[in-house]
Amino acid sequence: MAKIRVTVWGENIHEHTHKAVKKVYPKGMHTCIADGLNEATDIKAITATLQQPEHGLTEKVLANTDVLTWWGHMGHHLVEDVIVSRVQRRVLEGMGLIVLHSGHYSKIFKRMMGTTCSLCWREAAEKERIWVCNPTHPITKGIDRFIEIPHTEMYGEPFGIPVPEEQIFITWFEGGEVFRSGNVWKRGNGKIFYFEPGHETFPIYFQKEIKLVLKNAVRYVCQQSIWKDGCPMITAEQTREKIGKK
Amino acid sequence: MAKIRVTVWGENIHEHTHKAVKKVYPKGMHTCIADGLNEATDIKAITATLQQPEHGLTEKVLANTDVLTWWGHMGHHLVEDVIVSRVQRRVLEGMGLIVLHSGHYSKIFKRMMGTTCSLCWREAAEKERIWVCNPTHPITKGIDRFIEIPHTEMYGEPFGIPVPEEQIFITWFEGGEVFRSGNVWKRGNGKIFYFEPGHETFPIYFQKEIKLVLKNAVRYVCQQSIWKDGCPMITAEQTREKIGKK
Amino acid sequence: MAKIRVTVWGENIHEHTHKAVKKVYPKGMHTCIADGLNEATDIKAITATLQQPEHGLTEKVLANTDVLTWWGHMGHHLVEDVIVSRVQRRVLEGMGLIVLHSGHYSKIFKRMMGTTCSLCWREAAEKERIWVCNPTHPITKGIDRFIEIPHTEMYGEPFGIPVPEEQIFITWFEGGEVFRSGNVWKRGNGKIFYFEPGHETFPIYFQKEIKLVLKNAVRYVCQQSIWKDGCPMITAEQTREKIGKK
Amino acid sequence: MAKIRVTVWGENIHEHTHKAVKKVYPKGMHTCIADGLNEATDIKAITATLQQPEHGLTEKVLANTDVLTWWGHMGHHLVEDVIVSRVQRRVLEGMGLIVLHSGHYSKIFKRMMGTTCSLCWREAAEKERIWVCNPTHPITKGIDRFIEIPHTEMYGEPFGIPVPEEQIFITWFEGGEVFRSGNVWKRGNGKIFYFEPGHETFPIYFQKEIKLVLKNAVRYVCQQSIWKDGCPMITAEQTREKIGKK
Repeated sequence: MAKIRVTVWGENIHEHTHKAVKKVYPKGMHTCIADGLNEATDIKAITATLQQPEHGLTEKVLANTDVLTWWGHMGHHLVEDVIVSRVQRRVLEGMGLIVLHSGHYSKIFKRMMGTTCSLCWREAAEKERIWVCNPTHPITKGIDRFIEIPHTEMYGEPFGIPVPEEQIFITWFEGGEVFRSGNVWKRGNGKIFYFEPGHETFPIYFQKEIKLVLKNAVRYVCQQSIWKDGCPMITAEQTREKIGKK
Repeated sequence: MAKIRVTVWGENIHEHTHKAVKKVYPKGMHTCIADGLNEATDIKAITATLQQPEHGLTEKVLANTDVLTWWGHMGHHLVEDVIVSRVQRRVLEGMGLIVLHSGHYSKIFKRMMGTTCSLCWREAAEKERIWVCNPTHPITKGIDRFIEIPHTEMYGEPFGIPVPEEQIFITWFEGGEVFRSGNVWKRGNGKIFYFEPGHETFPIYFQKEIKLVLKNAVRYVCQQSIWKDGCPMITAEQTREKIGKK
Repeated sequence: MAKIRVTVWGENIHEHTHKAVKKVYPKGMHTCIADGLNEATDIKAITATLQQPEHGLTEKVLANTDVLTWWGHMGHHLVEDVIVSRVQRRVLEGMGLIVLHSGHYSKIFKRMMGTTCSLCWREAAEKERIWVCNPTHPITKGIDRFIEIPHTEMYGEPFGIPVPEEQIFITWFEGGEVFRSGNVWKRGNGKIFYFEPGHETFPIYFQKEIKLVLKNAVRYVCQQSIWKDGCPMITAEQTREKIGKK
Repeated sequence: MAKIRVTVWGENIHEHTHKAVKKVYPKGMHTCIADGLNEATDIKAITATLQQPEHGLTEKVLANTDVLTWWGHMGHHLVEDVIVSRVQRRVLEGMGLIVLHSGHYSKIFKRMMGTTCSLCWREAAEKERIWVCNPTHPITKGIDRFIEIPHTEMYGEPFGIPVPEEQIFITWFEGGEVFRSGNVWKRGNGKIFYFEPGHETFPIYFQKEIKLVLKNAVRYVCQQSIWKDGCPMITAEQTREKIGKK
């Protein structure tokens, strides 16, 4: 069986400008995420970054991508609108999209949601506990009742999103907040999964359970079919019923 | 303008069998809830209890009820199925239903949801913080970012419900759990609001913000119209298009 | 790979009491449906009927069923409540459920939906055209823009169901009505698909496209996991955060 | 009580370039729609058009608009992106949005939905019958089982939208198609209603039932509150729980 082709997109800025991030992710967050996915025998993950021509997301790359993961933060505004539109079109055709952490404010996520995607936040290296709301969902396979992350940034409600079609995870934060941290929507033929963990200064993408959720999610949002969009005029020949004379 | 007619249903057992409950709610939880609602000039709340004939929910009472609130716990099994069916029929016609706390396991809530409605729980008098997910929803009017309840029972995820159509509140618990504590669904013409606070040994229904949410919720689930259910056969006369000879 | 184990439940009354039905389905509708499913190499379908002990739905049969299909009409009231509860529990655990045609008024469908499930209807042997709303959904795989059924019973809106989580098909009727004819919901861990075609006096379950949709639907509602329901008390040992003294 | 302030936006091109349209709507479609709304004593509708400075949708106009209705067709590409963003922001704050007919392809509707919003179509002056799916919904108040429009353009499934949160109407077309013709979504604090009727060459906005639906819809999508969006950092002072030393 063919492997699921994943493109792991990384903004790839913090890793070069913040020592703390470089220390945690010396090869870049995108490489770490791709390495985690490539542990699975049914997944083949490659990477693409902001700095590459067309941000690494050429028509050809996207045509050969079943699932795209997106991590961005300080460079959201540097992503060209034409590339965002190209990604959106592919999602609507059926490419899966996994949006990570600060990607909540990426152009592509806001484009798919239509909403502000805002939240509240705090950096205090606090503990996070991610609760499973949907115990037998394919995305939670192999996860027990919760995942604990020892140190992370807090993201809190209200989260400015359309009501999720599937509520997979909700997070408890040490400082007293909660957050809808794993949410699924379908847009066109594409499935979208937002997953909150992943602050750049902590080794969250090295954590075993997080890597497992990402593998599960890749399998879940991967579609086998493509919607050929159009706005066809139905001709007299295609019309199934006789229309009375007007 | 006519007042909204609310019937506050109470199981009314703990108040007579548990000293601690009697002390907190000497007139019964149902009376306390009704008193809170009656603070509003646009609401007229009465009470009904398990012990009354037909559990106080006669055809006449329900016909004159715009919104029914439900608190039950140890006596769920004592509620007659015929009364549950009667309440369900009225909800589907358009009566609002507010299910409180341990009412998650009531016959009527399970009937409306079709699911297990299970959860996990702990009694440790811990703190609860109820976060607003939907800041301008009519149910959260007048509530700031959250409500704190100093001592309560914990209800935790996974909550065995259909995915809520509106996510109003999510709760943080001191012991480390989270819970979807304010959820809206529509069933038939009736709106249903589940609201988690309300453990019997704490004076939660006396708390100002809880009383405010209940008033808001009564207004939100109150409908003005009735769905006259039926399964009509469409006669030749009612058929709008000519059907070819068969 | 193990085959998907389907139990095709049939009321099996019309076939014995109505000559027209017996003529179309001499071996029973359930056998016809099962035969269609068994054309697929990944499906193993057996049948069960109302007249068998426990309606053929013993604990053992259900424990070995991945997907249950349900066709009933004049005998809905003859199905024992205890069996309905057993089926419901299995659906909530993860067994798929496909409800066919007049099964809209079955005890199990009303139990899962919580609503009236009513509609309007007409028997005039009219034409039905089932439109695909979700062109790349797994259930519509291999179906072009629509399916036409030359002669059928009309089922019309309003259909008294909760809002579908996925809208797969909508039907056009010759006499002028429309109907949400393919709808998906999730309840607990079980996926439910309602599919409208299938009036007993027409050979609809012999039609190629209908058989294809049923195969697709079996694969779609089949789950691999089981939700072990419970309402566990969380002990001090299981509590993740220290709770302040009270 | 203050009136609901509606701004009826019209593209206002066909009325000047197509004689047939000018004949049906000599004062413009927008004026006709506004006149219909102004029949209600609780609504005050004004108009705005593409040709005005800022398309008539200045910050001030939008700040004083409770509900915006949108009809556009051949000039979608002429609407400035900055105005689209301004309208979107106001919808997310709580302004209601009613998108009409060919507005399905407007920038603002595609922006709010995140999807292609495509459909299939035919101009054959055929009959349309709009069925009520939600009989006691505020939008269908005063409408019986259906509305008939004698001559219209056909819009058919698949309609490239996110699954509607409320299914109000589904349409039957003489030529054999169906369409989800009345759909509600919530985005941010704004309610959005898409309503399919309204082809420019027919006097559809003069039709009594269509005017009634539009009045009902204005009342339904009108919100009383505003979501002040932000992405606040939670300070130590605002943090409700003590976070352990890191």
